[in-house]
Amino acid sequence: MEELTSIHNQHVKDWKKLQTKKFRRQTGEYLLDGWHLVNEAVKAGHHLNQLIGTADQLADHGDLVALADEAYTVTPEIMRHVTDTVTPQGIAAVVDLPDAHQVPASLSGAWLFLDRVQDPGNVGTMVRTADAAGFTGVVVGSRSADIFGPKVVRSMQGSQFHLQLLEGDLRKWVADFKAAGAPVYGTQLNPAAQNFRDIHPGATFALIMGNEGQGMSNELLAQTTANLYIPMRGDAESLNVAVSAGILMFQLNQEL
Amino acid sequence: MEELTSIHNQHVKDWKKLQTKKFRRQTGEYLLDGWHLVNEAVKAGHHLNQLIGTADQLADHGDLVALADEAYTVTPEIMRHVTDTVTPQGIAAVVDLPDAHQVPASLSGAWLFLDRVQDPGNVGTMVRTADAAGFTGVVVGSRSADIFGPKVVRSMQGSQFHLQLLEGDLRKWVADFKAAGAPVYGTQLNPAAQNFRDIHPGATFALIMGNEGQGMSNELLAQTTANLYIPMRGDAESLNVAVSAGILMFQLNQEL
Repeated sequence: MEELTSIHNQHVKDWKKLQTKKFRRQTGEYLLDGWHLVNEAVKAGHHLNQLIGTADQLADHGDLVALADEAYTVTPEIMRHVTDTVTPQGIAAVVDLPDAHQVPASLSGAWLFLDRVQDPGNVGTMVRTADAAGFTGVVVGSRSADIFGPKVVRSMQGSQFHLQLLEGDLRKWVADFKAAGAPVYGTQLNPAAQNFRDIHPGATFALIMGNEGQGMSNELLAQTTANLYIPMRGDAESLNVAVSAGILMFQLNQEL
Repeated sequence: MEELTSIHNQHVKDWKKLQTKKFRRQTGEYLLDGWHLVNEAVKAGHHLNQLIGTADQLADHGDLVALADEAYTVTPEIMRHVTDTVTPQGIAAVVDLPDAHQVPASLSGAWLFLDRVQDPGNVGTMVRTADAAGFTGVVVGSRSADIFGPKVVRSMQGSQFHLQLLEGDLRKWVADFKAAGAPVYGTQLNPAAQNFRDIHPGATFALIMGNEGQGMSNELLAQTTANLYIPMRGDAESLNVAVSAGILMFQLNQEL
């Protein structure tokens, strides 16, 4: 097992660069920080290309070291540097980016579409909530936060291993759902839209959440089966987008 | 109108110190950053003890300057310093801390109790969501994030002006609600608890949300009318506390 002590080492530089979308696309890999995520990856049958840990963490987990192609002992300082975490747990792994453009052969189940959601914490929290609500998949449209960026990965808490997490053209996804006879619900801050409490879809449907400030694009709003609103007191912008998504997902999918 | 250009000016030092709980308690004041919050305070009839703005912002809003006891023109650098915001809007105001211990004469409406919720963003988002859901008040127990700290104030987005935001001993609040014949619902990550979808309270009730990692205290759990859980797939900790609170509040209070 190689021991690294300098943040100028080429491996360390590469791990740090995995924080950028460009380098993730170039290498086809991303970084998982902490025990929970590394364990979730292993449980889901993912291969650990590189395991990175402090000496004491790796010494305690020989089983995990044996699973990895390569393992590296690093200093706590290097760990902080590559994970951008103030108090990292001392374990991380580099794994392959999944193919995020693999469209399922047949459309079924509950799906969440994200239209230009920009805050990485919001994107990650919504993926995590979709997982908890029993959703089948999440499709992230262009101009949203990158789904394998460090902040999204931290907020997802491993939910990318439990559901289908895809990127794609939402106009095409909406058209495909409608062609398959499944309803697609937009969301709108407009009391003239449909009260979310009156909607009871079957097992297959899609819900679209939009940008934090501007909401969904008009183009998509015009394409949906219906647009939903959550009746609320006072200002129309009183709900955080991730909270709204949670309320809607647990209302629309009551199978759990 | 006084013009301040140095961050070493005593006023500037005092505004900066309002970021600490100690100084807020000592002065009985807190800081509102940005147009939305300053306007909400004025709309709610609150007095502006001090108005702080960049030259161009104050020049455009003589009406607001006239409402304030004192107004100060400051540099953008001072604005960033006192608000801890990267791109502040150039307007802030110092207002009185409300009396957060004024118990209403009679208990009615929907109330949210926060038991040791520690992340300021979560506390602020839950207050904001309670406002949107038409709740009457929020009571924050000890060992929660301070409700007038800068991050909580930013996340509340002015909801402190729309509902009763109080601090108190939650054991006493729970006892008072039960004595008044109103149900108090705890929350628990335990499928043996009651499914939240089966609960339909009347107009007066309380909901308790607990700490991000540990949940509610056992002492309070034992005191409630019933404890609710949200059925979810997979790991028990799959929902962010603010998302859970949103789902529960919009389920329990369907009056809007």
